[in-house]
Amino acid sequence: MYHKPARVYEVAFWDPASASKGIVRTGTWASCPAFIDARYPFTTLLHQGLIERSDEKENPSYPVEINLEHADGTSREIVRAKYLFGGEGARSFIREQLGIGITHKDPIAHVWGVMDGVVKTDFPDIKMKCTIHSEHGSVMVIPRENRMVRLYIQIASSTDPDWSPRKTATAAEVQASAKRIFQPYSIEWERVEWYSVYPIGQGISDKYTLDHRVFLGGDACHTHSPKAGQGMNTAFLDAQNLAWKIHAVEAGFAKRELLKTYEPERKEVAENLLSFDNKYAKLFSERPPAAKEVQAASKHANGHSEDNEFIKTFKESCEFTSGYGVAYGPNALNWSPSHPAQSHLIHPKGTKLRTGRMMANADVTRVVDANIVHLEQEIPWNGSFRIYIFAGKLSVTAKALKDLAFQLSEKPSFFGSYLRPDIKTVSHHERYNPHSLFFTICTIFAAARNEIEISRDLPGLLGRYRDLVYADDRWDRRVPNAAAAAHAKVGVDEEKGGVVVVRPDGYVGIVTSLVEGNGTINALNAYFDAFCTKRIGESRAQL
Amino acid sequence: MYHKPARVYEVAFWDPASASKGIVRTGTWASCPAFIDARYPFTTLLHQGLIERSDEKENPSYPVEINLEHADGTSREIVRAKYLFGGEGARSFIREQLGIGITHKDPIAHVWGVMDGVVKTDFPDIKMKCTIHSEHGSVMVIPRENRMVRLYIQIASSTDPDWSPRKTATAAEVQASAKRIFQPYSIEWERVEWYSVYPIGQGISDKYTLDHRVFLGGDACHTHSPKAGQGMNTAFLDAQNLAWKIHAVEAGFAKRELLKTYEPERKEVAENLLSFDNKYAKLFSERPPAAKEVQAASKHANGHSEDNEFIKTFKESCEFTSGYGVAYGPNALNWSPSHPAQSHLIHPKGTKLRTGRMMANADVTRVVDANIVHLEQEIPWNGSFRIYIFAGKLSVTAKALKDLAFQLSEKPSFFGSYLRPDIKTVSHHERYNPHSLFFTICTIFAAARNEIEISRDLPGLLGRYRDLVYADDRWDRRVPNAAAAAHAKVGVDEEKGGVVVVRPDGYVGIVTSLVEGNGTINALNAYFDAFCTKRIGESRAQL
Repeated sequence: MYHKPARVYEVAFWDPASASKGIVRTGTWASCPAFIDARYPFTTLLHQGLIERSDEKENPSYPVEINLEHADGTSREIVRAKYLFGGEGARSFIREQLGIGITHKDPIAHVWGVMDGVVKTDFPDIKMKCTIHSEHGSVMVIPRENRMVRLYIQIASSTDPDWSPRKTATAAEVQASAKRIFQPYSIEWERVEWYSVYPIGQGISDKYTLDHRVFLGGDACHTHSPKAGQGMNTAFLDAQNLAWKIHAVEAGFAKRELLKTYEPERKEVAENLLSFDNKYAKLFSERPPAAKEVQAASKHANGHSEDNEFIKTFKESCEFTSGYGVAYGPNALNWSPSHPAQSHLIHPKGTKLRTGRMMANADVTRVVDANIVHLEQEIPWNGSFRIYIFAGKLSVTAKALKDLAFQLSEKPSFFGSYLRPDIKTVSHHERYNPHSLFFTICTIFAAARNEIEISRDLPGLLGRYRDLVYADDRWDRRVPNAAAAAHAKVGVDEEKGGVVVVRPDGYVGIVTSLVEGNGTINALNAYFDAFCTKRIGESRAQL
Repeated sequence: MYHKPARVYEVAFWDPASASKGIVRTGTWASCPAFIDARYPFTTLLHQGLIERSDEKENPSYPVEINLEHADGTSREIVRAKYLFGGEGARSFIREQLGIGITHKDPIAHVWGVMDGVVKTDFPDIKMKCTIHSEHGSVMVIPRENRMVRLYIQIASSTDPDWSPRKTATAAEVQASAKRIFQPYSIEWERVEWYSVYPIGQGISDKYTLDHRVFLGGDACHTHSPKAGQGMNTAFLDAQNLAWKIHAVEAGFAKRELLKTYEPERKEVAENLLSFDNKYAKLFSERPPAAKEVQAASKHANGHSEDNEFIKTFKESCEFTSGYGVAYGPNALNWSPSHPAQSHLIHPKGTKLRTGRMMANADVTRVVDANIVHLEQEIPWNGSFRIYIFAGKLSVTAKALKDLAFQLSEKPSFFGSYLRPDIKTVSHHERYNPHSLFFTICTIFAAARNEIEISRDLPGLLGRYRDLVYADDRWDRRVPNAAAAAHAKVGVDEEKGGVVVVRPDGYVGIVTSLVEGNGTINALNAYFDAFCTKRIGESRAQL
């Protein structure tokens, strides 16, 4: 299905006017300011129901036993599974059965009213995302698809003297309240599509799993305000983080210990989300930003001296809500100086990528059909590690490429150790996994497209990935003087190249230099040896 | 429906190798080189059948009488219509009935085989658009959606000694022929989706209409080779050109004479298409371009001295096939010095737009929701003239805008003369035609988005088009030093602004300065007075 979500490029802030004449706009800022190099620098708004259309598939078998009792009490059955994922929301039954507690970061709870509808108003920012404070209460405005607008209206707070989490309000009461808040502007509802009232408390699950067989994710692990639309996004990334790891383990590629990286990686994100939610809430409720601060925050992207506390928080939150702020800490997947893989070739000087963070975005020209494409989106979510070979100048790297191609195909390499059992019968149409289900290889030359001849320039097995060969010949405003913008954006040498390994979920695992001899393959072998099931040997090839 | 067409960014040329070792690539060039400022600089390839899904709607009534006889001879009926459009292809029955002849620009005719299928090949450019010449014949390669490829293979030419327009060939014969042509590369078919053989002759209809009631368009008017995929595109533009004019006449807005602009505008395009087709064919068949010529053509966009005949033809053809080359000559719609509208304000110095050509593309920020949008696509094909008010700096233009807003609403203006009869009951959701079905107004300020306040800055009726107010604050690489890139691209003063009138089909009608007093409105009134039904008076307003 092809939807047309609303797009939010900027957020507007409205506060009480000085002389109690209703509300005035005190400033706007970008959803995703220019200092974040985002492919899509805006927030999209789409009904969650339009996304929740895919069925969950369960993995039948072993160690998890679930006793199901039919609701009418007539029968019982036992289901055995390898894993169980509890993504059943804030009141998770599975979390309760596991006896896992919830920690409340911020003890303040709220009751919110949320109303979707079509309105008639002279409020000028009705198509913007807005936070409105007034002496009559607060409203959040969220533009929607199909002329609709969503309003969030705070109905009660646990700091109120008469607080009750069961406090409620009718649609008419909430509309009357909104009308007072919007003064001096008028607002009328032509149609109410949906209205609901619900209590929200900030909380984080103490554990995401006890035994690495039963896992929790989504609202079962973290609850917070709906202000930044992070609930569903964070839940998706929980599931994505776990899914490829289970696949890697069950397919015999990664050691079972890999699953232990799920909780720390995702719990830290949830902790950050809640801290952010806290700060975000305080920024809005305690101290509305002055217009000049907002302006400063939008413009001074690189200056550090000007950054006051407000600007810093703003920057952090923008990076966070854009998705570019997710940062997984060091572990077997995310190389750091304490990783078992040790080589002076790893993370060479100049590298701009950070392990545990998203791969940079870059436009390149695909050689086979001359299409201008988004390099970071060229490999689908196929469960494979993505090996990006930045090949620099062929005149410089020809031998290094040849060595690497040969060593990849050697049996003891990380690549040669995990070939497909059906490798001899794979279709010539297979683009991404002709050799291994765990790796897809891209090669990017610092050259113009018409200088590259795949059958001549790509040695050995690299040439088989002919649909994934690129010319780094597109100008990029972020690195205006670079001859090879993609090389420059990831920070590898435009002549000598380098290798970037990206995890199946899009986060950078390791970056190495591309050199002649065994150095590159051995650095990569050591990296994968930290979590792969087979003993990956050092290359013994005579080159 | 959402399709995924193949995209062609470059075309490759293959020719016989010097020592008869099969074919070699002699060069590539861009489908839409950088000297054309195209929004989408590529060609899309999609099955025509996926596009031909809309039913034609006929306009019942008067002067055209059609006598229909049922195919089984059992009955007859008479249909009366206001208009009849003959778009029934190269063998048009209507054209024949009208006794309109065909002129053949190039007497040479061809028989082509066309084959869609999935292949296995080591030919490196199978995903590129290619023209292949070899001692065994010629092939054109067209990449397609779903792994398919289309091959055009010339089966016979009227220059052959044994020429017959009824010559044919089986799929197997064509495949055998293709195999010889592709040497030294191999090609095998895994699946043939579709195969057909058809004769093609170049021809152009002598007239597009006799009485401006029965019109011809599409292949009924022009036939040519399929080389550049221009057949369907040209047919669409025939229909589009006629459709809005009929609407304007039948709705009482334009004089019936407007319909007389259809034939000259579209016939000239067809003449150009056939000349282009001729040259294009000759470029390929007579003299394959040398690699260095192709390179020169792609790189020297502005240099004139380097342009040899080949490069010139190349440039012309690229602009033509991109759609940006359509140029309608002077008439009542396309202002020129001989147009009745005469004012020193018209087409002021610096204007980069050309009347009868497409509006320039430009990114701007929409004020109501801060979305970055394509200005030239902001108004849908709604049959309205598009009034783009480039408002420059508000501090400079405030009075000129106020004057124009007032004068537009005056009864004798082109705008005030054609208000909607239901103007009082139009919904506040109506974005494009709140006042008139014949005009939609956009206002673009040379300012940052947050400096613009619609309710404060847009006088009178201009403010009603609140969804079509823009900040010209996006940097554009084509005018890197402009403070207001959209103003700079159309060539209006970044301080004083200007007004651009674009025809309902997207072609520029007239450009005027934006000045205080009556000058601007009177220039626009005189322009519309040349083809509107009502007598549009001069503004008599006291300002």
